[in-house]
Amino acid sequence: MPANFTEQAYKKTGATTLNGVPKIVDHDERRREIIGVVWRLIATEGIHSVTTRRIAEAAGFANGALLYYFPNKDAVLTAAFRHIFDATNVRADKVDTDRHGLPGLRTLCLEIMPLDDERLAEARLAITFWQQALNSPEKAALHAAFMNQWRAEMTRRLDEARAAGALRESTDVPATVDELLAMLMGLQILGVLSPAEATPARQLSQLDDFFDRLRPAG
Amino acid sequence: MPANFTEQAYKKTGATTLNGVPKIVDHDERRREIIGVVWRLIATEGIHSVTTRRIAEAAGFANGALLYYFPNKDAVLTAAFRHIFDATNVRADKVDTDRHGLPGLRTLCLEIMPLDDERLAEARLAITFWQQALNSPEKAALHAAFMNQWRAEMTRRLDEARAAGALRESTDVPATVDELLAMLMGLQILGVLSPAEATPARQLSQLDDFFDRLRPAG
Repeated sequence: MPANFTEQAYKKTGATTLNGVPKIVDHDERRREIIGVVWRLIATEGIHSVTTRRIAEAAGFANGALLYYFPNKDAVLTAAFRHIFDATNVRADKVDTDRHGLPGLRTLCLEIMPLDDERLAEARLAITFWQQALNSPEKAALHAAFMNQWRAEMTRRLDEARAAGALRESTDVPATVDELLAMLMGLQILGVLSPAEATPARQLSQLDDFFDRLRPAG
Repeated sequence: MPANFTEQAYKKTGATTLNGVPKIVDHDERRREIIGVVWRLIATEGIHSVTTRRIAEAAGFANGALLYYFPNKDAVLTAAFRHIFDATNVRADKVDTDRHGLPGLRTLCLEIMPLDDERLAEARLAITFWQQALNSPEKAALHAAFMNQWRAEMTRRLDEARAAGALRESTDVPATVDELLAMLMGLQILGVLSPAEATPARQLSQLDDFFDRLRPAG
């Protein structure tokens, strides 16, 4: 390999040498690794207790190296929110990649709802992001885009149910999507801040009631 | 008035003198005045942009005088959350003090929903409080207590509707309260962060659908 190619590769990808052997570093992969650790730290300890130094330590990086990936805590939080949104969708994909109709819609809902420690931690991260989005047009726009992505999937699933004759005749799809999204957002708060009332059992019962209303009467 | 009585009054209530005339200061009233200004400042500018100095200025106090009423920003935020919770209930009382049954329940819901600038500002304050409650057991307990206060009122209103024969036979009251509270919490977020979708008209339509499901069929 010509020296100048290695040099370019180093500059381009931040390759480091390990025992003199050039190692190509996948920066996207590194970012993902860091965020995979850090989102949970923020969710557990709170955004205001977590310093960039603490983040760097937890991720096993020097503070300076972390700054290479995330210029500030704001960038960390946005990446963390993207991470939990993706993680939710990836889980739903794993349960059922080709999800369709009402069962497919239910699969997505179950991954959004704060039904276990993992999803409760995601809800804590979401609440943190909402607060930070109040005075950040970029974060608010990202949140709205993600919510619209879910709205679009919910709409498709309901349309599929209708096409298959599995949706109650009177169902108004856009209104049902509004209802479902409000319920799922509300459960994020109640699951975290009213855990004695918003237990997994009561959350699931609420979801069942919602789907019962969507199925053809009779 | 004996000198020592005035002295006692001064110590007890923080009376100041205006042109040499002792003035009894109602501290609770003062606190309310301050919070009535400050909650909106936090809701608009964001908790992290609002310094105690800025709060003191906006409330027309010296920084030191503010500290007399609120030892720190945490105490200000908790008082602000109490303020918006009370304000919501006071508005519902003004519309209908003796609210009963489904119309009474609807009155409360309308004051909670972020349907105008005032209630959107309250929702912003609530989102701020939720985030701060994530790592504050005291704030989380206060939030849970307030939510339980609303749950209790919602339950009473539904029970009244049932007693009057105005509730659909199949309605499960605790499940309906769970559903309503999740919807109202979710609308706080969507009203603020997805205003293009969670318009007042669509929020009201969602509320109408909810009440349609509660009325006796037929």
